[in-house]
Amino acid sequence: MHKKVAVILSGCGVYDGAEIHESVLTLLRLDQRGAQVQCFAPNIAQLHVVDHLSGDEMSESRNVLVESARIARGKIKDLREAKIDDFDALIVPGGFGAAKNLSDFAVSGAQCTVNPEVLRVAQGFASAGKPVGLICIAPAMAAKIYGAGVVCTIGTDADTATALGQMGAEHQDCPVEDIIVDEQRKLVTTPAYMLAESISQAASGINKLVDRVLELSEG
Amino acid sequence: MHKKVAVILSGCGVYDGAEIHESVLTLLRLDQRGAQVQCFAPNIAQLHVVDHLSGDEMSESRNVLVESARIARGKIKDLREAKIDDFDALIVPGGFGAAKNLSDFAVSGAQCTVNPEVLRVAQGFASAGKPVGLICIAPAMAAKIYGAGVVCTIGTDADTATALGQMGAEHQDCPVEDIIVDEQRKLVTTPAYMLAESISQAASGINKLVDRVLELSEG
Repeated sequence: MHKKVAVILSGCGVYDGAEIHESVLTLLRLDQRGAQVQCFAPNIAQLHVVDHLSGDEMSESRNVLVESARIARGKIKDLREAKIDDFDALIVPGGFGAAKNLSDFAVSGAQCTVNPEVLRVAQGFASAGKPVGLICIAPAMAAKIYGAGVVCTIGTDADTATALGQMGAEHQDCPVEDIIVDEQRKLVTTPAYMLAESISQAASGINKLVDRVLELSEG
Repeated sequence: MHKKVAVILSGCGVYDGAEIHESVLTLLRLDQRGAQVQCFAPNIAQLHVVDHLSGDEMSESRNVLVESARIARGKIKDLREAKIDDFDALIVPGGFGAAKNLSDFAVSGAQCTVNPEVLRVAQGFASAGKPVGLICIAPAMAAKIYGAGVVCTIGTDADTATALGQMGAEHQDCPVEDIIVDEQRKLVTTPAYMLAESISQAASGINKLVDRVLELSEG
């Protein structure tokens, strides 16, 4: 049986949206493992738009769903349409979009809130006992989704790890090629570009995450 | 010795720029094979901007170099800075950007012209006897780069193949997982999303293309 996996994107570009390499690597591994994928994104304005050449903020507005559609080659749905029953697992790639559009962790740190639709869907998978994979900075949402005690990683960055701890998460340091698994909650996390110095390094951890998420969906 | 490979991007998104999956798959394989990569893009306005969710044209302007920087995570240079002597090979991923921004094949077909900087760089590699890989629709530029008689593929689309023939190319049909090699000119082409129905299919041909380009750069 083909596993059905929902992927939530957060725009298109590391500095204001979904990290493109992480997103594509996730889609590649899922496809290579025979999973059926449906991409989703919230139909909201991006927090801002960043010129990825200069690093400067641009004076324009872009929509998270519309820009995410670039990564999904148009095959994407409004996150409001996501039904937990239709899927076996959920994966959220990183990039600043996870901390600017899916949540406001980049602005508010430990006092952050998560977009209501993202929270509805992620908590739906959690309460249904279905596995979730959070990549890169996306685990900043873990405590909001699962509550205190959830085990996860964002790599080795001490300040970020402290903020996660303040929110109730139990952070564990993790190298780029590995994953941290909260077996009880079926949550899998990997640092990816929080630590990766090359796309191959990011792929090594993401491949493990995808494989583990699919294993955990075996029931 | 690490091979040095230049990659020319044409924006960020299949309908108005570089095909994102093809671009990332190219960067992944190059990195996995130990190549050192430098991305480039022309510093010009995109032909247009397409809403990848609806397929409609959007009333805004975006710059090819700035948008390409999203795929390159900011590590990209203006194509005017590209020096042939610095590299062993060149690869150009597809997406409509290759036919709208690097050339105007999408508008003018067999009467198309290639952006002067793209032509300078690609012909520089060709005349230096250095291998070039063109992916998806990018081989529409092959005859302009190499002149009549160049052997290449865009897959199996008859109309596109006819247009390439009118420009002087010798088109050969090719399945998605394979490549066509013009051994004399050291040109490698693969259909990728001209035919691919999944990201894994695109990866199969792109991996072969990257491997062959690196082999051909052995001298």
